[in-house]
Amino acid sequence: MPSAGILIIGNEILSGKVTDTNSPYLCRELRTLGVDVERILTIADEVDLIAQEVRTMSDAYDFVFTSGGIGPTHDDMTMESVAQAFGRKVTRSETIANRLERASGGAPNESALKMAMIPDDAQLVDAGDLWFPVVIVENVHVFPGIPELLRKKFESIRDRFHGVPVLLKSVFVRRRESEIAHLLNDLLHAFPELMLGSYPKIGEEAFHVLLTLESRDAGYLQDSLDALLAKLPEDAIHKVE
Amino acid sequence: MPSAGILIIGNEILSGKVTDTNSPYLCRELRTLGVDVERILTIADEVDLIAQEVRTMSDAYDFVFTSGGIGPTHDDMTMESVAQAFGRKVTRSETIANRLERASGGAPNESALKMAMIPDDAQLVDAGDLWFPVVIVENVHVFPGIPELLRKKFESIRDRFHGVPVLLKSVFVRRRESEIAHLLNDLLHAFPELMLGSYPKIGEEAFHVLLTLESRDAGYLQDSLDALLAKLPEDAIHKVE
Repeated sequence: MPSAGILIIGNEILSGKVTDTNSPYLCRELRTLGVDVERILTIADEVDLIAQEVRTMSDAYDFVFTSGGIGPTHDDMTMESVAQAFGRKVTRSETIANRLERASGGAPNESALKMAMIPDDAQLVDAGDLWFPVVIVENVHVFPGIPELLRKKFESIRDRFHGVPVLLKSVFVRRRESEIAHLLNDLLHAFPELMLGSYPKIGEEAFHVLLTLESRDAGYLQDSLDALLAKLPEDAIHKVE
Repeated sequence: MPSAGILIIGNEILSGKVTDTNSPYLCRELRTLGVDVERILTIADEVDLIAQEVRTMSDAYDFVFTSGGIGPTHDDMTMESVAQAFGRKVTRSETIANRLERASGGAPNESALKMAMIPDDAQLVDAGDLWFPVVIVENVHVFPGIPELLRKKFESIRDRFHGVPVLLKSVFVRRRESEIAHLLNDLLHAFPELMLGSYPKIGEEAFHVLLTLESRDAGYLQDSLDALLAKLPEDAIHKVE
């Protein structure tokens, strides 16, 4: 299955001033599309560091998504970093410069034109109703940090990402984790390919543990669910979704 | 200043089923205490991978905080991984085994006792009203993934972390980023040590950009704020906090 890494760029996340909502969004969407997110990394606004991590992720995963650092100010250094990651330079894109001019209703100033500086040989993808194209370098998709814009951009190119979606069943259990852990081990022995998660919940009245069963194979998932439900005492099952 | 890395362990985050609220919490708290979070990394439940990243972070930062993977089930492998990171074994802690027995009101079963298996020579810190001590190995603080428990554990040992807190001033600006970018460059030229963030906001009526000025030096922060306010046209300033 296709794999992905997410790189969140921004001092504002590390300093706790802003909560990253982009990686949860991308994880949910990519899961739906059947792409496995294998790593989420948040780092500071530093060119060498960003370049190094972009390159490492690009080599390791089928797709990389970066978030943040593509505006006109001093702390926006993602384009330069992505270029450096692949040993390229940044050059002014006339396509983007023209868009900036149209958007601002006149000649853009020098700061605005910084947003037209993109890595050499970047792919520009125009899709949806966005005035600014999506910039892709190798397998790296450069997204803005503003959640509304990131979502629009991802939506506009989501057709490019598809694997076999993962199917999920959730079982809410009225037992403590330690009381059912051996049943889960037995289940995994019988269904070694099952993705099985066990999550205790605090402050829930109706159940103590949420079990998640996942597989890309609907039959395998159903069989493993049936096997689990047969193992659990009937009064231990709060609900199945 | 002391530095920190945060390691979030859990397939449930990567698959988008659960949103990580632990790293935002830790970032905010550590910022208040004056500790610089330099990296947040989310990875899957895999022993070799966790061990490798724990070791890398332990070498790179003063403090490491892990979240998740310390329960009694098959997908809980953080203790084993942290042990492996430092070439140690896991051994049964009688202290924790006794606590488990008291908590469960009888002999704990084999699964529950998995939670008593901790890395050799780990430090156990008893603080606050927690029945389960905080496990620390070298500079790695092993926290649970359940947000309520992580917060309790962090609170119980927060006295151990202290640098010089970062002071923050926020300026809400009624201009676009590209219109003020040159002023920000000028400001940084005059105050090169200033931590200056510029964050455009969408859907806000009253302002377009939030500027954050940060420093550990109150005088330097005030001087840079004064310099910024002098540069900005008066009608561009929505508010200062």
